[in-house]
Formats: sequence, structure tokens, C-alpha cells
Amino acid sequence: PDWIPQVRDNVMMLEREYKFKNFKLAWAFSNKVAELAEEEFHHPSILLEWGKVTITWWTHAIGGLHKNDFICAAKTDQLLD
Amino acid sequence: PDWIPQVRDNVMMLEREYKFKNFKLAWAFSNKVAELAEEEFHHPSILLEWGKVTITWWTHAIGGLHKNDFICAAKTDQLLD
Repeated sequence: PDWIPQVRDNVMMLEREYKFKNFKLAWAFSNKVAELAEEEFHHPSILLEWGKVTITWWTHAIGGLHKNDFICAAKTDQLLD
Repeated sequence: PDWIPQVRDNVMMLEREYKFKNFKLAWAFSNKVAELAEEEFHHPSILLEWGKVTITWWTHAIGGLHKNDFICAAKTDQLLD
């Protein structure tokens, strides 16, 4: 499973978990996603844990998912390389 | 309220939310906490959102809180300056 739709506080969100071999790799990926967020002027939640990063995209302004969230999700996947 | 005890999946954790004026400041703080985690060989969960960072400390090995978690929580606060 890649991106999974989630409903939280009545808001539809798009969430994906990425696994890594250690904290450093997970941390580096988190920072890439944070850079992407700044470039896009659109900010997901980024949950960094040991060996795991969980990214959640949604659009605050509309309280749900916008086409842009799906684009940002795809761009997040491209950061994996 | 500073650090709040939380029980998640039957595990006691110590959690604190830090507010920031923008994403960049929140991101910078997240990275400081990640550096601390590497120094301490102890890793909290770090949730980075726009203007907010939520840090959660607990000790996986004992499935709960150890004295070290309270020490790391105090060290996290010191990173704010």
C-alpha cells in the first residue's frame, strides 16, 4: 500500500509511511520533504521516528484533499532515490 | 502545560507541543531535536507541522518511561533558545 486516505477530525488526508534502516536515513528523508514543502508553499505533517517517516498531505484552506495534495504526494515519492 | 504524560498502545509517554511563528522555525527546532537524539542514542518521535513541533519521548525497551526520558525532555527544552 502506498498512499492511504485517512479521515482525521472530519478532514480527508493522504498518508504514507516510509521505512528506513536507521534514524539518519529517516531524518535525511524528512528534511527532503521539508524542503519540498517550502518549495511548494504547501506543508504536510512530517512524523520522524526511528527507521520510519510518516507523511500526511491535506489542504487546510478547504479542510480536505485538493488535486495539489495528490501532486505533492507523487513528488514526495520521487524524493526517495 | 509543558510535558504531558500520554498513554498510547498501553505505553506511557511524555509529550510536549512547541509552537513557532512559521515552518522554517519549526523545522530548525526539529533538526536540533534530531541531533540531540543521535547524541543521546535515544530517539523520540518528532512531528513537524506548520508552526508546530510535537516531541514524544518513551523507552521502547521497557515499553514505558525511564528516568532517561525525563532527562531528554529537559534537554529538549534547552534547545529552544
